[in-house]
Amino acid sequence: MDNQSFIPPHRTLMGPGPSDVSERVLKAMAKPTIGHLDPVFIQMMDDTKKLLQYAFQTENELTFAVSAPGMAGMECCFANLVEPNEKVIICKNGFFGERMKENVERFGGIPIVIDDEWGTKVDLNKIEEALKANPDTKIVASVHAETSTGALSDPESITKLAHDYGCLSIVDTVTGLAGVPLMVDDWKIDAIYSGTQKCLSASPGLSPISFSKASMEKIKNRKSKVKSWFLDLNLIMSYWEGEGGRSYHHTAPINSLYGLHEALIILKEEGLENSWFRHKENHILLKDGLESMGINFLVNKEDRLPQLNAIYIPDGVNDLESRQRLLNEFNLEIGAGLGVLAGKVWRIGLMGQSSNKKNIEYCLNSLKKVI
Amino acid sequence: MDNQSFIPPHRTLMGPGPSDVSERVLKAMAKPTIGHLDPVFIQMMDDTKKLLQYAFQTENELTFAVSAPGMAGMECCFANLVEPNEKVIICKNGFFGERMKENVERFGGIPIVIDDEWGTKVDLNKIEEALKANPDTKIVASVHAETSTGALSDPESITKLAHDYGCLSIVDTVTGLAGVPLMVDDWKIDAIYSGTQKCLSASPGLSPISFSKASMEKIKNRKSKVKSWFLDLNLIMSYWEGEGGRSYHHTAPINSLYGLHEALIILKEEGLENSWFRHKENHILLKDGLESMGINFLVNKEDRLPQLNAIYIPDGVNDLESRQRLLNEFNLEIGAGLGVLAGKVWRIGLMGQSSNKKNIEYCLNSLKKVI
Repeated sequence: MDNQSFIPPHRTLMGPGPSDVSERVLKAMAKPTIGHLDPVFIQMMDDTKKLLQYAFQTENELTFAVSAPGMAGMECCFANLVEPNEKVIICKNGFFGERMKENVERFGGIPIVIDDEWGTKVDLNKIEEALKANPDTKIVASVHAETSTGALSDPESITKLAHDYGCLSIVDTVTGLAGVPLMVDDWKIDAIYSGTQKCLSASPGLSPISFSKASMEKIKNRKSKVKSWFLDLNLIMSYWEGEGGRSYHHTAPINSLYGLHEALIILKEEGLENSWFRHKENHILLKDGLESMGINFLVNKEDRLPQLNAIYIPDGVNDLESRQRLLNEFNLEIGAGLGVLAGKVWRIGLMGQSSNKKNIEYCLNSLKKVI
Repeated sequence: MDNQSFIPPHRTLMGPGPSDVSERVLKAMAKPTIGHLDPVFIQMMDDTKKLLQYAFQTENELTFAVSAPGMAGMECCFANLVEPNEKVIICKNGFFGERMKENVERFGGIPIVIDDEWGTKVDLNKIEEALKANPDTKIVASVHAETSTGALSDPESITKLAHDYGCLSIVDTVTGLAGVPLMVDDWKIDAIYSGTQKCLSASPGLSPISFSKASMEKIKNRKSKVKSWFLDLNLIMSYWEGEGGRSYHHTAPINSLYGLHEALIILKEEGLENSWFRHKENHILLKDGLESMGINFLVNKEDRLPQLNAIYIPDGVNDLESRQRLLNEFNLEIGAGLGVLAGKVWRIGLMGQSSNKKNIEYCLNSLKKVI
């Protein structure tokens, strides 16, 4: 009602995100708001940058959190890196490849879409064919961890291929970051964006992002102005990196950044490799349980994301009704299928804080009761 | 440090925003995160829409919160309403008029800038001259409450003039909403955006926004696609307004929206008119105190914003040093001058929860000690 405080239920979040947000992160968000130009806040932004560099495994100077959700992170990459009439290869193996294509078009680029079946990983051979057929391509864009299907691709090899043909590599790791191995510097990725509400288990609303020197050079030397003022990195750079006091660009989402900072501290306490390992171990536990119920996975065993499990809805089971029962009777959220997979699969997330044994047991037991 | 939880100091926020965020709003943000497609959350979004309609005094269907700070709200208006080569009159009487011009240019429009001196209100005669000289103008854009100067303009008359010449009216009320009278429907404003961190006293990160039927028509009938996917209202409409379950567009900033909802409940409890009145009463109290110290205002008495008081820095007083002392010794934030007013004025905010007698007394006493 519009005259009463909102009291949300206490859900167990095992969909495609948001994942369970810990008490520590919730409490961090409730700390007193301070000014976005307060030296104490600016110090916290610097610390957040260092923590994001750790999570991305990069020393990229231009590493920060866009003040808007993951989709704005995507837009930030394409708006800044694509100039009009430039060819961009989009590796599309799910819902988010389609969004990348939309982005390229809106910024005046020419998308060359490589289609891989939903649920499979990106095929390197097809990229190379496209690069040979379009030697004037400037960028190759791919999704590390397809949230719509649960397929893991290989951004390291894709980036190597892109570089062999003189292209930059943009990688979407919205669902990947902290859930599966990712080494931005070792893999030489040029631009990468993520979200806070997946394996970092902060509240949604921010998009961690990082750009290589080559990307920064391209952005600084653009012929046309970026078709966004809010996301223009030439302006944002001076906000996150300004010496001797930052120039005002926009008011940062103060309390959301408190939450992200705390979530990154939690990640560092656990250790990045340990986080990757935990996600993998828990995936196996869930997989064993589901398979013992006769439930099958969409994605081949070797290409599965541990943090996003797309499973076929068993024959004769009503999709919507079952998910509603899980939500209403068990306070358990799992994800529906997206796009061509709507009504065919469910997506069970084991992301960040949600990736734990208690959740897995609860999910398996609840599923048994509703299907 | 990047391995320790962040503990912010407890500041009194009397700058140009963020304003003091109440315990109620902070606690609301710390409530458990739920899914952005959860029916319970969608109900809260509907309630938030009703509350925003109340705050804006509008029945506009397309009233919601952009999932990013006020500057993205500005960009959302211009990206959606400006088509390439369209003329847009920008009433520039401060820092934020300049940003509007940047926006128009980036989306391919032709800005016609009307300059008024910083600290004065927008001059209606100049607008009419420009409209006569440019009869093909499509939009008139103005700032209701200039945060950089503390000047209040007259969006009702500006909108009437715009309509007389067949134009739409875009209004920036980032600092205006809930602090000074604003009647979006009565004044027939076509597009308006605000921020959460000013007189609503929620944390920064969202931009309340509202569009008239005429605006929606223009957006639906655009010849070119909006140069932003994240801010394309044709897509966002189906997210905030979708019947029978919303289509997925992006993951909303769940906990920030909890906070905005609570801030709007607090506004409704007080009553919008009472909020306007409180801001005015407290302004007079502050003004009397400052004048008794011999401090002068930048803006003429009749055009002053009660919530943003730009005052001349007294002769011989060091700008930076005084503000640093206020911050470090008194935990009190006031604002520096922006742009041409840097080093010349201070900006004392009495916005939302910050507009109270205790703050005013504390601010006056602290100022006496440092200057």
